Amino acid sequence: MTGRNSLRKIVATVAVFLLLPSQMGGQKTTPPTPAQVAQAVREYRMENEDRIVRELCEFLAIPNIASDTPNIQKNAAHLVEMLEARGIETHLLPITGRGPVVFGKLISAEVKRTVIFYAHYDGQPVDPAAWTDGAPFEPVLRSGAIEAGGKRIPFPANRTRIRGAYNDDWRIYARSSSDDKSPIVALLAALDALRAKRIPLAVNLKVIFEGEEEAGSPNLQKTLELHKNLLGADLLITADGPVHQSGGPLVFFGNRGDIGIDLTVYGPVRALHSGHYGNWAPNPAMELSRLLASMKDEDGRVLIDGYYDDVTPLGKVEKEALAEMPDNDAELERELGIAKPEGGGRKLVDLIMEPSLNVRGLRSAYVGAQAQNVVPDKAEASLEARLVKGEEPKKKFEQIAAFIGRRGFFVVDHEPTMEERRAHERIAKVIYEGGYRASRTPMDLPMSKAVVDVVKAAAGKDTVVMPSSGGSVPMYIFDDLGMQWVGVPIVNYDNHQHSSDENLRLGHFWRGMETYGAILADLNW
Amino acid sequence: MTGRNSLRKIVATVAVFLLLPSQMGGQKTTPPTPAQVAQAVREYRMENEDRIVRELCEFLAIPNIASDTPNIQKNAAHLVEMLEARGIETHLLPITGRGPVVFGKLISAEVKRTVIFYAHYDGQPVDPAAWTDGAPFEPVLRSGAIEAGGKRIPFPANRTRIRGAYNDDWRIYARSSSDDKSPIVALLAALDALRAKRIPLAVNLKVIFEGEEEAGSPNLQKTLELHKNLLGADLLITADGPVHQSGGPLVFFGNRGDIGIDLTVYGPVRALHSGHYGNWAPNPAMELSRLLASMKDEDGRVLIDGYYDDVTPLGKVEKEALAEMPDNDAELERELGIAKPEGGGRKLVDLIMEPSLNVRGLRSAYVGAQAQNVVPDKAEASLEARLVKGEEPKKKFEQIAAFIGRRGFFVVDHEPTMEERRAHERIAKVIYEGGYRASRTPMDLPMSKAVVDVVKAAAGKDTVVMPSSGGSVPMYIFDDLGMQWVGVPIVNYDNHQHSSDENLRLGHFWRGMETYGAILADLNW
Repeated sequence: MTGRNSLRKIVATVAVFLLLPSQMGGQKTTPPTPAQVAQAVREYRMENEDRIVRELCEFLAIPNIASDTPNIQKNAAHLVEMLEARGIETHLLPITGRGPVVFGKLISAEVKRTVIFYAHYDGQPVDPAAWTDGAPFEPVLRSGAIEAGGKRIPFPANRTRIRGAYNDDWRIYARSSSDDKSPIVALLAALDALRAKRIPLAVNLKVIFEGEEEAGSPNLQKTLELHKNLLGADLLITADGPVHQSGGPLVFFGNRGDIGIDLTVYGPVRALHSGHYGNWAPNPAMELSRLLASMKDEDGRVLIDGYYDDVTPLGKVEKEALAEMPDNDAELERELGIAKPEGGGRKLVDLIMEPSLNVRGLRSAYVGAQAQNVVPDKAEASLEARLVKGEEPKKKFEQIAAFIGRRGFFVVDHEPTMEERRAHERIAKVIYEGGYRASRTPMDLPMSKAVVDVVKAAAGKDTVVMPSSGGSVPMYIFDDLGMQWVGVPIVNYDNHQHSSDENLRLGHFWRGMETYGAILADLNW
Repeated sequence: MTGRNSLRKIVATVAVFLLLPSQMGGQKTTPPTPAQVAQAVREYRMENEDRIVRELCEFLAIPNIASDTPNIQKNAAHLVEMLEARGIETHLLPITGRGPVVFGKLISAEVKRTVIFYAHYDGQPVDPAAWTDGAPFEPVLRSGAIEAGGKRIPFPANRTRIRGAYNDDWRIYARSSSDDKSPIVALLAALDALRAKRIPLAVNLKVIFEGEEEAGSPNLQKTLELHKNLLGADLLITADGPVHQSGGPLVFFGNRGDIGIDLTVYGPVRALHSGHYGNWAPNPAMELSRLLASMKDEDGRVLIDGYYDDVTPLGKVEKEALAEMPDNDAELERELGIAKPEGGGRKLVDLIMEPSLNVRGLRSAYVGAQAQNVVPDKAEASLEARLVKGEEPKKKFEQIAAFIGRRGFFVVDHEPTMEERRAHERIAKVIYEGGYRASRTPMDLPMSKAVVDVVKAAAGKDTVVMPSSGGSVPMYIFDDLGMQWVGVPIVNYDNHQHSSDENLRLGHFWRGMETYGAILADLNW
């Protein structure tokens, strides 16, 4: 059975509801409460778990690295089928050589507000060898998290029509199972549920599904600007990111910007025998270590001049929200095996309101059994800075590059020539990978409050409200388009997002469907 | 044509000479001078280049990583054929799961001295992707060094019977083309030449060809001790290593010991999203950088307590030899693109008489296009210390491990448990890979002088005489067996030994044959 045929089967049973919303509009009485909607979605889900999980797994089975052109475009085509099967009018906003922005809209009669859901269908690069099951694009079901001893189990065999066959603690392992394909499937399943239960939509729904987010969204802004006419809306909800580490649902109003830097430090023009040249040839791995070590103090405070100067301080509402957030740092430390976090004793939520400087990776020659007795010819680091409101990406890059220069490195943007090598004791290639600004929506807008109220009513009073997430999604683009946004993520926080063994806890997935169902059925301000 | 058949063909023509040495012994008059022998070997070589290069290439085509059991044993079997084809009595001294020590002996009548040639037939690990031609075990001929613009050229087509078809500047690219298979082939070709030219051997020849040198020779000592009865000899000549950077021939009397250390520094138990945890989760790549940076000062001087305490100072003869050595540091700096070497202005030859501490490689998560936005879970470094006379390997390791402990790391020899992670702010796994002592033969022994005289007379007055090489070969093993040794390497110094694109310059290979021919025909004291 091909994915295409299978998808047709999945949606065959929901297609009959396509005309329902407008019919129901005519007979409208008091809408069900968010709690009632959540209950109705749950009922629907328990009857249809097999179909929902199958739709998710088929989507996850399409490799989705942004730079893998044929596959990322295959994802987009698959997504179009998923949307059109729900009667959502779909447009591909093309990007040369990359996955298009998939835009969709579903207009309902007699509703006031229009909400755009944003998510991305591309995923982080993968190293299959680092995955326990070795195949990031072959979804695997496990009885729990791998680190908690979760075992690989078959997908329930007699799948159809078994009510609640899937345990909440089971997890699906695959790239983008959390980040960020499952929110897309949850939204569409929530829509199916409302239709099945004949609950009308309270808002017009638009969707923007991007295929380059993990590559830094280099084309999103200009693509959306070209198609600005499609984007009329009152609010954008981003579905990206995990819920709070407390396990509770999360609504957040900002996120950090992000820049990437490739740093290469040079040694001799070729790797040299470490015996014959060992005390004489400068070692680039050592030079790189010295440079990195000079960038931060032992508490993790960045020592680069002016690094914190442009930060827009938090306002009173944001500070109050931070103070109200659950403090589960001690549990996190225990779970993650951290004896002492960075930050000199400050709380995680306070620390991620500041810019960061992170070493994403190191590479020089070889280690372990592959090690060679050489003085390496170069040493590479991948750096990343998270930005907060007020900071400009290019300026941040320039601060870092200037610091490297002041540490005695001749800074270049190309492989150094032989003449440059002969002239400069230390050479660093510092490449700006691009990046974007942070963004923050005021927490006291009526619609901000409305979203918090619906989520709390649908998903629970333990909902965490956060002025800004630590993560980065290019929400500044919507700022620039004059659009306010709020984040309503659904996936478990321990999802290995961006790393190997990415996974989705099904209980979170189910709750996310209910949350999105309540937003579609009840959001109003 | 299989390698085996081909080998048989190669040696078919020389087999007829097997009885010659003893015949010639009976008719012995004044032996030819080293210069005459060199000339005779050159004559032979120019007539037989095709056969010699073919034998080398077939040998290079057998992958030879010490841990690759089937292939390393295939190398040994091939070597046995090569030796037996010359009528050399051969014994395999077995090592479980590894390549055996290949021992051979060729006893001549009426000679006083017995010389053992030592070489190794295993090679450094390879990363095919890092090789220009992508296949380290498929020998490639080039018109010069790659870095000098050398182009790939076909092996001469009408191979046989073209006198001097190979240009001296041509190079053969393959793993172990220099380190250390070509000296073995040069020695055997020199033997063929002497026989063809009816020049008798002046010494009994024994050979010890090892298959684990690049893995640190963990079994050589006990294997030789088990077979001590085979090893009676007056001198051992090691063929390993490159000649001097001046290009001149080299005789050396010592080399450094070597230890390897695998160092792993731990962060959170799993890689974490750098946005959500970025200023809070300790970054192991940064911790590792700080630790490495603390180990050496900017001049390359090791800051670990007691690091230079056990060094046996050089004697007067050694110091004089060092002072006489050509100073080509400036040329080397130019060639290697080094603006300022380590060592605070001291000469390379002086610096390699001291212990070293070298970062062989670094690895943490991913860099470049593969970079993931994570705080990595660990960071690894491969360290290596070269030892000089007087230093004990295990003590050196303990000095380094103790230093890491004093830098605030809880030092373990295993993957840390969750309890250890929760209890210790910084954790380093420090694994001793093993290693061995340095060795140095007195330069004023009669046989030491005799070797220098023969090499100078055969290969040139520009022969460099060196108290110790910077490299490491487990010569201490022969010390312990009561055997004096001298190093007579032959390959070009710019051979990319231990790295990718390892190569052999043919001019050096030819000269090496002549040198070995002269030693076999003229060495006496």
